[in-house]
Amino acid sequence: MDLNTLRETARAKLKGYCRVCSFCNGIACRGEVPGMGGVGSGSSFKANVEALAHHLLNMRTIHEVRDPRTNLTLFGCELDMPVMAAPMTGSTYNMGGAISEEDLATSLLMGSLQAGVMGMIGDGADPTMYASGLAAIRGTKGRGIAIIKPRGQKEIIARIQEAEAAGAAAVGVDIDGAGLITMSLKGQPVGPKSLRELREIIQATSLPFIIKGIMTPVEAEMAVEAGAAGIVVSNHGGRVLDSTPGVAEVLPWIAEKVRNHTVVLADGGVRNGADVLKLLALGAQAVLVGRPLAIGAVGGGPEGVALLLNNMRTELIQSMLLTATADVRHVDRKILFLRQASALG
Amino acid sequence: MDLNTLRETARAKLKGYCRVCSFCNGIACRGEVPGMGGVGSGSSFKANVEALAHHLLNMRTIHEVRDPRTNLTLFGCELDMPVMAAPMTGSTYNMGGAISEEDLATSLLMGSLQAGVMGMIGDGADPTMYASGLAAIRGTKGRGIAIIKPRGQKEIIARIQEAEAAGAAAVGVDIDGAGLITMSLKGQPVGPKSLRELREIIQATSLPFIIKGIMTPVEAEMAVEAGAAGIVVSNHGGRVLDSTPGVAEVLPWIAEKVRNHTVVLADGGVRNGADVLKLLALGAQAVLVGRPLAIGAVGGGPEGVALLLNNMRTELIQSMLLTATADVRHVDRKILFLRQASALG
Amino acid sequence: MDLNTLRETARAKLKGYCRVCSFCNGIACRGEVPGMGGVGSGSSFKANVEALAHHLLNMRTIHEVRDPRTNLTLFGCELDMPVMAAPMTGSTYNMGGAISEEDLATSLLMGSLQAGVMGMIGDGADPTMYASGLAAIRGTKGRGIAIIKPRGQKEIIARIQEAEAAGAAAVGVDIDGAGLITMSLKGQPVGPKSLRELREIIQATSLPFIIKGIMTPVEAEMAVEAGAAGIVVSNHGGRVLDSTPGVAEVLPWIAEKVRNHTVVLADGGVRNGADVLKLLALGAQAVLVGRPLAIGAVGGGPEGVALLLNNMRTELIQSMLLTATADVRHVDRKILFLRQASALG
Amino acid sequence: MDLNTLRETARAKLKGYCRVCSFCNGIACRGEVPGMGGVGSGSSFKANVEALAHHLLNMRTIHEVRDPRTNLTLFGCELDMPVMAAPMTGSTYNMGGAISEEDLATSLLMGSLQAGVMGMIGDGADPTMYASGLAAIRGTKGRGIAIIKPRGQKEIIARIQEAEAAGAAAVGVDIDGAGLITMSLKGQPVGPKSLRELREIIQATSLPFIIKGIMTPVEAEMAVEAGAAGIVVSNHGGRVLDSTPGVAEVLPWIAEKVRNHTVVLADGGVRNGADVLKLLALGAQAVLVGRPLAIGAVGGGPEGVALLLNNMRTELIQSMLLTATADVRHVDRKILFLRQASALG
Repeated sequence: MDLNTLRETARAKLKGYCRVCSFCNGIACRGEVPGMGGVGSGSSFKANVEALAHHLLNMRTIHEVRDPRTNLTLFGCELDMPVMAAPMTGSTYNMGGAISEEDLATSLLMGSLQAGVMGMIGDGADPTMYASGLAAIRGTKGRGIAIIKPRGQKEIIARIQEAEAAGAAAVGVDIDGAGLITMSLKGQPVGPKSLRELREIIQATSLPFIIKGIMTPVEAEMAVEAGAAGIVVSNHGGRVLDSTPGVAEVLPWIAEKVRNHTVVLADGGVRNGADVLKLLALGAQAVLVGRPLAIGAVGGGPEGVALLLNNMRTELIQSMLLTATADVRHVDRKILFLRQASALG
Repeated sequence: MDLNTLRETARAKLKGYCRVCSFCNGIACRGEVPGMGGVGSGSSFKANVEALAHHLLNMRTIHEVRDPRTNLTLFGCELDMPVMAAPMTGSTYNMGGAISEEDLATSLLMGSLQAGVMGMIGDGADPTMYASGLAAIRGTKGRGIAIIKPRGQKEIIARIQEAEAAGAAAVGVDIDGAGLITMSLKGQPVGPKSLRELREIIQATSLPFIIKGIMTPVEAEMAVEAGAAGIVVSNHGGRVLDSTPGVAEVLPWIAEKVRNHTVVLADGGVRNGADVLKLLALGAQAVLVGRPLAIGAVGGGPEGVALLLNNMRTELIQSMLLTATADVRHVDRKILFLRQASALG
Repeated sequence: MDLNTLRETARAKLKGYCRVCSFCNGIACRGEVPGMGGVGSGSSFKANVEALAHHLLNMRTIHEVRDPRTNLTLFGCELDMPVMAAPMTGSTYNMGGAISEEDLATSLLMGSLQAGVMGMIGDGADPTMYASGLAAIRGTKGRGIAIIKPRGQKEIIARIQEAEAAGAAAVGVDIDGAGLITMSLKGQPVGPKSLRELREIIQATSLPFIIKGIMTPVEAEMAVEAGAAGIVVSNHGGRVLDSTPGVAEVLPWIAEKVRNHTVVLADGGVRNGADVLKLLALGAQAVLVGRPLAIGAVGGGPEGVALLLNNMRTELIQSMLLTATADVRHVDRKILFLRQASALG
Repeated sequence: MDLNTLRETARAKLKGYCRVCSFCNGIACRGEVPGMGGVGSGSSFKANVEALAHHLLNMRTIHEVRDPRTNLTLFGCELDMPVMAAPMTGSTYNMGGAISEEDLATSLLMGSLQAGVMGMIGDGADPTMYASGLAAIRGTKGRGIAIIKPRGQKEIIARIQEAEAAGAAAVGVDIDGAGLITMSLKGQPVGPKSLRELREIIQATSLPFIIKGIMTPVEAEMAVEAGAAGIVVSNHGGRVLDSTPGVAEVLPWIAEKVRNHTVVLADGGVRNGADVLKLLALGAQAVLVGRPLAIGAVGGGPEGVALLLNNMRTELIQSMLLTATADVRHVDRKILFLRQASALG
């Protein structure tokens, strides 16, 4: 399978739900929720891409880095690079049924495994979504993280136990799902969580627990206080609230506060290896990739996902070679270009 | 009725007078006055949308807000949310006759009533416009505010008395209509008002009086001095003067000055619930919505207007849940993201 | 004649040499010299429009201005408003022959006269261009200013004498024509002028002398020192040098230096009455309008030019009414909106 | 041959590999590597164009410069202007075979010679590429510079000796080719170079040695320390690393550090004579031109390349006349417009 075939196949199957644009930036699909876009004006999706584009890299070519190290251990798992598949569900209404919920979860997790990394599974109004994800975790012998919607306490804990039984590597809640009134309307109420509630949930499992959907330093500190093993700096791909900042804009302030106390993951707008490297320089230990891998799953199944991830690893190595970065676990912020206002002063 | 049908119907009826764009930002219709655009380069219309887009929201998900309160009392009326229909007239030349003047006014006021809020009616060169509006106020048993053009003193006071007779909740003048030379040419002279003239008008009625078209702190203070019960920060949808700032850019400076002395409303570029919340954070007590509701009226009559307003209320609640805002009457400015220049310093 | 007919006629005649865009900003025609565009990347043309767009107006509606005064005396001539037609020639290669050189000059000067203002005529490689302009000056009984290319000293002085004989109100040189190597190739050398050469030229005539093509305060002061009765801040419509700033960006610094010593005119990107008012606020005494009037000449002859100028005067009056400006001779810089960086500090 | 014919011929032959846009800015071809675009999001290509556009020129027309000098001596060669053809190879996969590797090299070097300047030749995975370049150097009797990929030490030195035998005017390495994993996969490993390795290579030849691909002041100083006769500030046309700054943004800081110790060349986004002048003002002694000359080679062979270079020289002279610049060897930074933040303070 080659990249062009993958993309053409995906474009045909997605029938306009996603245009598989030459560069995925949230403009063509603005407002398409359900669909693949950002909510409202689409600005929160676009902000993720723009915040990454705002950061530039100092190209370095005279140095001694020859064989950059990309692997690391995360939540007890060995990963060939600091990249994971983001949790995605709802293929019926978001992707026009271009892929079944089962195949989507399987493609993301199996493809991630083939590429030496790991993926996340999601939760949704339809109970088969979470079940499909758990099946994919079992199918990869536990190479997967289960992310549960911010439901009632009991419902979350029950789903955590299912994830434990499936052998998940970690579990978590995407608390930014709190505004999904549609879930409430379907009899599956979700909502914000208090610090006390989060602590109760976290204490109910021995697995590493991840809070996904943190966009401010204050809440990152609350997540640490609640006992989170990791946080995901994320605006849910711009799909829950219009007009948020981009992830790469808030990440450095969050990482500065909590990086020594919890694992910081970043999720938003990653399109290639240079983006991965920039988020590491801004303080993340690893990143999540969403829409591009959904396209990979639709266009090529597990092999499609693996192909995209392998390309991204090649790009990451190239970016490390051209910025004199030897190890993904120690990325110097100085690889980022600092614009000097008084250029001609 | 669903949103897509409403929009397709409106697009067909409006025959290009409005393209019913996927995101309404003043670009496609720039310069189309008459029509639905902004005057000249269209920059004042665009500035409203851009000024709102410039402000970002801090997404918060760890907190105790569960059931945000959206209702409030304004000019003695209970509103289910701080949103009102803006006064719009001239359907013949602005909308290509896609809707009659009567149906436009009725749709806006009846639809607002159905959605638990209230609308405004406008005035124009053709006397049937104001009459249609008054009829709509009577039809909703007084759930409407009459906004009169800045005519001669006697003409204004006569129209105020008609509004009182129709049972209007409040009256006002859109003083930014002062530059409409076309009205003068049709024998209906309009012009700027002095502080003395405004005071005389306001003293002629016991209804709450609103001055619409304030864009500077100095004039906001003059409006308070004249006795206005409320002001509308507005550039008339960018239709009277090219190259004004956007409403969301001048609002905080105006609100800071007069918010404790008069009701501050904001009108310009509101497209969804996140926009409403941002204007409240910037100092408005409620907002006006124009073009989107005109599209609703053309595409679905009163039900169309109500559908759009109900969607906006859902979005407002979601935005409040995701910013930890409990009450529309007390919106913390800290929900706005403050860009930090020295992000990588 | 109405505006739409004028524009459709012009669009048909110009056959793509000018697209007669809904908003004329230099994007569609970038690089088209010959043609109607800006040279190279087209950035200098665009910069004129963008620099004007950057400046915003404070809308004011509570005040006592009722009947703004737009007329003034310039170089001994009464003008109904501070707007003049810019010198334009070369209709064969710039406009695809949509209009003859004679008709272009006549339309600009006669149309200006009909609208109560005055126009300029230009010079070019083909001697019939300047002759057509002089004929138009004679046809309007001296309501015209002759702008000569920066040729050799004798050639300029000879042309000044022809302009005097034709009864021109003033004469000048567009020194920014210095880079036109094509003219040199056609045996008509042009080039930069020294201060000494300018002084010699100016002393050769008793008419007011205008130096057109000033973009820096230093050269404005040199123009004053040479004895110029007026300067035109102009980058030649972006047609001679790529990558200049916009006229509205350099104007305030230039006006500040020389406004008390010479008449300051501004030429670049004026599209409507609000633009006129902004340039006055930035320090100009009057402005020049180019491309829009060329479209008027092609689309409607003298009547077309007059129609556009009359519209612009209406817009100017509206803009004055909505900014509380009583007199074009005394425009307060405070009508310009001053963006406050710390809006949410 | 005229410019329009050249461009239409090139557009037809390139079959979409390059669209031959009216303004070449990296947007249409973003991500097309192989192809003519920038890698990934295409931002590094675009950054070159945008960084140049960011710098503006002060237009000056009152002065005594009459016959600007454009020639200079570089690496012992007389050049009629400070412009050289950049090294380009890979016509099969980058240009869809629109031109053979041999014809590409010959066109660039012969066309440069015809225009009184000089060109560079490149290296690639296929050994015929470098051989074609050397043949072109022989064909121009040594008017060419050989740029070699950052291979192993022995491979580089062998290629230097071939270049010496061909009579090359200078040699160099484009060290920004270090990330080309594809070359490694084809058994031709490339990689970053240490200071020690660069010194060893430089000491192996008596020809002037150029290090191409410097984007930071620190590495520029290392190049000087290694003994480089010249550096090229370049991000490889945005083709090796996404998200670098533009060349014109880093150039002044680099030139300030090393300009007195080595020849500083700049390569990125040059489209016309004004761009050349701006890079000289920012500290370069000469500039490289890439894609425009590739289009010239495809559309018109050596004559096409020469036509474009001659046009650029005309534009350079015009730009010098309009900025009062007498000599390309001494360009005053003050010809650059310095934006004043407090324009209306």
